[in-house]
Amino acid sequence: MYRVGIIGYGTVGKRVTDAVLRQPDMELVGISAHSYNYRIDVANQKGIPIYAMNDITELSGNGIQVKGSIKNLLSNIDVVVDCTPKKIGKANKENYYVNYPNLKAIYQGGEKAEIGKSFVAQCNYNESIGQKHVRVVSCNTTGLARTLHTIDTHWPIQRVRATLIRRGTDPADSDRGPINAIVPSLELPSHHGPDVRTVLPNIEVFTTAVVVPTTLMHMHNLSVDLKEVGEDTKGKMPTADDVIEVFKKAPRIRVVKSSSGIISTAEIMEYAKDLGNHRGDMMDICVWEKGLGIHGKELFYAQAVHQESNIVPENIDAIRAAMGFEDGEESIRITNRTLGLKERG
Amino acid sequence: MYRVGIIGYGTVGKRVTDAVLRQPDMELVGISAHSYNYRIDVANQKGIPIYAMNDITELSGNGIQVKGSIKNLLSNIDVVVDCTPKKIGKANKENYYVNYPNLKAIYQGGEKAEIGKSFVAQCNYNESIGQKHVRVVSCNTTGLARTLHTIDTHWPIQRVRATLIRRGTDPADSDRGPINAIVPSLELPSHHGPDVRTVLPNIEVFTTAVVVPTTLMHMHNLSVDLKEVGEDTKGKMPTADDVIEVFKKAPRIRVVKSSSGIISTAEIMEYAKDLGNHRGDMMDICVWEKGLGIHGKELFYAQAVHQESNIVPENIDAIRAAMGFEDGEESIRITNRTLGLKERG
Repeated sequence: MYRVGIIGYGTVGKRVTDAVLRQPDMELVGISAHSYNYRIDVANQKGIPIYAMNDITELSGNGIQVKGSIKNLLSNIDVVVDCTPKKIGKANKENYYVNYPNLKAIYQGGEKAEIGKSFVAQCNYNESIGQKHVRVVSCNTTGLARTLHTIDTHWPIQRVRATLIRRGTDPADSDRGPINAIVPSLELPSHHGPDVRTVLPNIEVFTTAVVVPTTLMHMHNLSVDLKEVGEDTKGKMPTADDVIEVFKKAPRIRVVKSSSGIISTAEIMEYAKDLGNHRGDMMDICVWEKGLGIHGKELFYAQAVHQESNIVPENIDAIRAAMGFEDGEESIRITNRTLGLKERG
Repeated sequence: MYRVGIIGYGTVGKRVTDAVLRQPDMELVGISAHSYNYRIDVANQKGIPIYAMNDITELSGNGIQVKGSIKNLLSNIDVVVDCTPKKIGKANKENYYVNYPNLKAIYQGGEKAEIGKSFVAQCNYNESIGQKHVRVVSCNTTGLARTLHTIDTHWPIQRVRATLIRRGTDPADSDRGPINAIVPSLELPSHHGPDVRTVLPNIEVFTTAVVVPTTLMHMHNLSVDLKEVGEDTKGKMPTADDVIEVFKKAPRIRVVKSSSGIISTAEIMEYAKDLGNHRGDMMDICVWEKGLGIHGKELFYAQAVHQESNIVPENIDAIRAAMGFEDGEESIRITNRTLGLKERG
């Protein structure tokens, strides 16, 4: 059993905690609490062991049963999953994690790539086997890497141009916008393109991004130039149906149909609830069947990314990889089965 | 004086009416009213002559002074600007306009391209000189055509890939969405690409689109492959500054700076109000200076399109073109000056 601790109990941390609890080969030793809030209160009600990041007075004063300090937690685990906001993971690494010689650490995509090995399970699991520091890349990068790697494996990619239409904030946040505006990202490329290359260094990908007033999911519109037939395409150009079939067989990619009434991100989120997914999450990347097409040697498709949850299975697989579990495909199968991801793939 | 009538008094019709009233060479003979509403009430208060599309009882009963029937209006004008919702322009053409041998008609971009000559003043004014039926293309198509034509004139374009992030509805509508979702357009290409080619047939442009929860403006993220140096580029590849300079000199394109605090479509609309623009409109296409860059032989930029107003100056120029006024540049100058568009260009 891998003994796991979670530092940071926000949108990602609480989901990774739930996911760890469902793994047959993992034991949740505890989570950290930075301060009192409704999330910690629920964790306390569920009996999840809570360790104080700082002073315990505020937590105890609010009825939270505190098991010990963060150092007590870190001394008693094999692997820490850091789910704190960006830059805090780096500080935690330097202030805490490096002091525990046998501790493995998983970070989130908000941290810079230097913090550890960038990881997307179905793309580069093997590169993180036994690594001390592994970085699960961001939700957008994970979404891009999953589908692009799947395509590239079958039909080598010449170049990718993607526009990311990003949600403004998460559903549970009330203090951010925009409420009624489209906010362009003026960095060229947006940071997502270079970040994809930390996982898939051989794919030339350039991204631009805007932020829009929605909370549910990100959307990506992609144009993918495929290499010419005969170059190294292992055969011929695909049809749209060929790509759809490959996506259907791939892990963590779900093909959705507008004919079934799924015409926007709103219906995807409702679909996830109807499927009975925990918290209504959709961890698969959703690609619209009708929105996928071939134009010359160029593939177009649109995909939706549930920013709160799609990186949860990656965190679970990253734990196994860091701990030295060598069979990436088996890890993905266990994770998918325990978390209720789509059956095929 | 060109005697002008306006059919349809919604978002576009009321703006074209205001614009016609400001032209030194046009006389507004009247507008049509389909039924009573606050827009017609304001027109009535302003003393604009109103002609009834149907029965006058409802209008009269609400205190609107009706000058006559639609046929009275059409008999008394040189040119009609049809600003009705899509498909109604076609019906009006067949049921009314064709019965007046000397009448010229201007339609909006919601109509199919077959209805008349597609028109964007700075791109193809000359093609519509003396034409009986002219179609001002949609706000998105106009926005794409303005900047692409400007680029192509200086550095020939190989191909264009654009993602359109469209506003859900106009600010004054309360019955449409989405409120919290991103809705992909699943047609490939979206209709905008082919529509641009009705104006610029030699530019290979492929568009995809999503609709998002905002009312203010559309946003376009463009990737433009320029032709190789030596092919027919008349010189060399541009730098980002070269393109910015060309945009600054072009009509109806405004370069905006994030350093001035314009970081989204919201600030552009506020900027338009601060400039004193009538109704707070922004008829220029706004390109972010910082968001424009060259990557190899590819040009990236982001532009915002005020869907309610950017086609207003085109309607004015289309009137002149249809009426046989031969100097397109002079028409653009008159229109820009009278409507308060940016001075340069």
